[in-house]
Amino acid sequence: MSELTSRFQTGDPQHLERRFAARAVGMQPSEIRSLFAVASRPEIVSLAGGMPNLSALPMGMMADVVHNLISINGAEALQYGSGQGHPKLREQICDVMALEGIRANADDIVVTTGSQQALDLISRIFIDPGDVVLVEAPSYVGALGTFHQYEASVVHVELDANGMVPEALRQAIKSVRAEGRKIKFLYLIPNYQNPSGVLLPADRRTEILEICRKEEIFVVEDNPYGLLGFDRPSPDAMRAEDSENVIYLGSFSKTISPGLRVGWALVPPSLKEKLVIASESSILCPSNFTQLTISNYLADQPWRDQIASFCNLYKVRRDAMLESLTEHFPASATWTKPGGGFYVWVTLPPEIDTKAMMPKAIVAKVAYVPGTAFYADGLGSWAMRLSYCYPTPERIREGVKALGGVIKQEIERRHSGYELKN
Amino acid sequence: MSELTSRFQTGDPQHLERRFAARAVGMQPSEIRSLFAVASRPEIVSLAGGMPNLSALPMGMMADVVHNLISINGAEALQYGSGQGHPKLREQICDVMALEGIRANADDIVVTTGSQQALDLISRIFIDPGDVVLVEAPSYVGALGTFHQYEASVVHVELDANGMVPEALRQAIKSVRAEGRKIKFLYLIPNYQNPSGVLLPADRRTEILEICRKEEIFVVEDNPYGLLGFDRPSPDAMRAEDSENVIYLGSFSKTISPGLRVGWALVPPSLKEKLVIASESSILCPSNFTQLTISNYLADQPWRDQIASFCNLYKVRRDAMLESLTEHFPASATWTKPGGGFYVWVTLPPEIDTKAMMPKAIVAKVAYVPGTAFYADGLGSWAMRLSYCYPTPERIREGVKALGGVIKQEIERRHSGYELKN
Repeated sequence: MSELTSRFQTGDPQHLERRFAARAVGMQPSEIRSLFAVASRPEIVSLAGGMPNLSALPMGMMADVVHNLISINGAEALQYGSGQGHPKLREQICDVMALEGIRANADDIVVTTGSQQALDLISRIFIDPGDVVLVEAPSYVGALGTFHQYEASVVHVELDANGMVPEALRQAIKSVRAEGRKIKFLYLIPNYQNPSGVLLPADRRTEILEICRKEEIFVVEDNPYGLLGFDRPSPDAMRAEDSENVIYLGSFSKTISPGLRVGWALVPPSLKEKLVIASESSILCPSNFTQLTISNYLADQPWRDQIASFCNLYKVRRDAMLESLTEHFPASATWTKPGGGFYVWVTLPPEIDTKAMMPKAIVAKVAYVPGTAFYADGLGSWAMRLSYCYPTPERIREGVKALGGVIKQEIERRHSGYELKN
Repeated sequence: MSELTSRFQTGDPQHLERRFAARAVGMQPSEIRSLFAVASRPEIVSLAGGMPNLSALPMGMMADVVHNLISINGAEALQYGSGQGHPKLREQICDVMALEGIRANADDIVVTTGSQQALDLISRIFIDPGDVVLVEAPSYVGALGTFHQYEASVVHVELDANGMVPEALRQAIKSVRAEGRKIKFLYLIPNYQNPSGVLLPADRRTEILEICRKEEIFVVEDNPYGLLGFDRPSPDAMRAEDSENVIYLGSFSKTISPGLRVGWALVPPSLKEKLVIASESSILCPSNFTQLTISNYLADQPWRDQIASFCNLYKVRRDAMLESLTEHFPASATWTKPGGGFYVWVTLPPEIDTKAMMPKAIVAKVAYVPGTAFYADGLGSWAMRLSYCYPTPERIREGVKALGGVIKQEIERRHSGYELKN
């Protein structure tokens, strides 16, 4: 055995790092990963995860859908399919998007392994190392991870209770370009944003679209929660207003099932071919089996009613969370009031570090996601994301109460510590 | 509307190209893509595709497997799962690999969306633009596409009727390194290689492993066909002999169903974490539904007998193809005699251009893949890949007969053309 070989086999980490690509050096476990391992213990009330609540999905019906699919059409469902996605499902996706005002051609849709794969492919097509991607502050942790993997430079744009602030976007574009840097796209979640839960109203959508068209910046509109509005329907999708400059990402993960891993991208025709080629190189083709499961479900089942059932289920949980936040959180905390989706964003006094506070929360049998996970620039230590989608309303109240206690103690401890130091 | 906007909206291609990443410039449709559109017409005998023949798969049984899965375990099957893949399936994958001599730990397996995704993730972790990947000459078109997308420089290594030639590998390593270039890994398909159908014997496996260990080059062993040996079992996998330096890729696409899109990578422990992070960034997690479908199938069904049925089905087709090649192809053609898998590689006189000949073959109602598709360097114009996996034996004979006629005519035409020119 050569000296070099034994050095590798003993696992000298520096030696191994030199064998990787530059982009791999930054592939490190996120803080959320280790957190989820703890939060999944049954005695913990997890307000951390974003798993949809499938208790509203009739499993007998789903079992029949898949049985019939294989019995009648198994030779197609179990075979390789089109790299772009099944033509029939792409037609049906047009009907789903029509609910949010989108008129689309099935030929401009690329079906993906969840909309996460669409994010990956869009990044692959657009991002050279150092390119700038604009995102909301805070933004979806999975998108930040993908942009990071393609070595983008993520620039956050201020978000308030009504979503991204157009004037902040103008300023961000100006200052990034003044530094000579290239902006590849704006990524945003206009409906019940992850992690903030806020909704971007129609007038801001129009204004942001105008800014991006004028500045030649593609808009990547990620919309997993658009059909999960509890109180009123969401405004029309941004893609409904602009078919040339918007790359729209959709998903069945929150309206049917995430275990099927079916999402899609609706893109301007000039991008479609590259997206298909990138997807084929990445996975050859999406699963015919899961695509046709969804296709048959959409064709034969009352899927709009099913979405309404999901909305009712989540609305009750949202109400439980907002009520118990009012009851149990300290007066110095503020939080968003989501009209749909899965998440509430809580802002605490700036001296609180939610990441450092996590072990105490775990001891109190409740978990959340610290705010820093949703920032690429290390901010967010004073905030946390709470999700109400999965636990029962009783468990939500229990968890929020416990967490309120932990926060109050932490504020008190900091306060007394401050007094001592002075 | 600004002048810039209208220039984009009219689709000025040069202007659009400037907005993409550098790697996207090379994302162009392959010659195989347009070919498959033609070859899928029912009147054409397609010897082009690599679709497994699912006529041996009992669909009633598969329908019951998925029905029971959802009825009994729908809440898990339809939910998000682990980024690394389902723990139970990873245990079962160890049993499948044991048939080829591999002793593995389920913790070192990452489940992927087909083994194509494993190729993509391995490329992502290792390849910086310009890095060298060594591959067989010829090699799998889908792997070449992925390496191209990560801007690798692909260097082919001679392959003969017994697979990759170890001495050619030594020379290739030497000459690449003499140019100061960095070799990231050797990619090869030791069993019934795609496209050549050849098998790498045990002694060459050992020799190639020794070379790569000594030279500190990872071996990526892609093994979709290893269990599809018709005449005798395949030699032990290369991974069975070297667990430190081999990255092993497996797939259920050829032994169960490609429509489920379930493959895996078995990697040295030092690579696992980065592979999982890369996969999460790419798709969040593989489908629990398709993973558990395979898991339940493996647990409850006679899957080894099912693989034997597939082998019988393909052996009859392989025999039909080899017999009719002898009967109908010209004496100046040679071809491989695969002991398993899907493919025969035909070498024609060097003046024949199989890509230019394709339209004539289509007129004669037969399709194949031109040899150039399997080379990154433009070679292979004198060769073609014929697959026997999908058509009936009768159709195979019909297709080979028609193709033999086209080739004989082409040789004659070239010959008379040559005489005329002189």
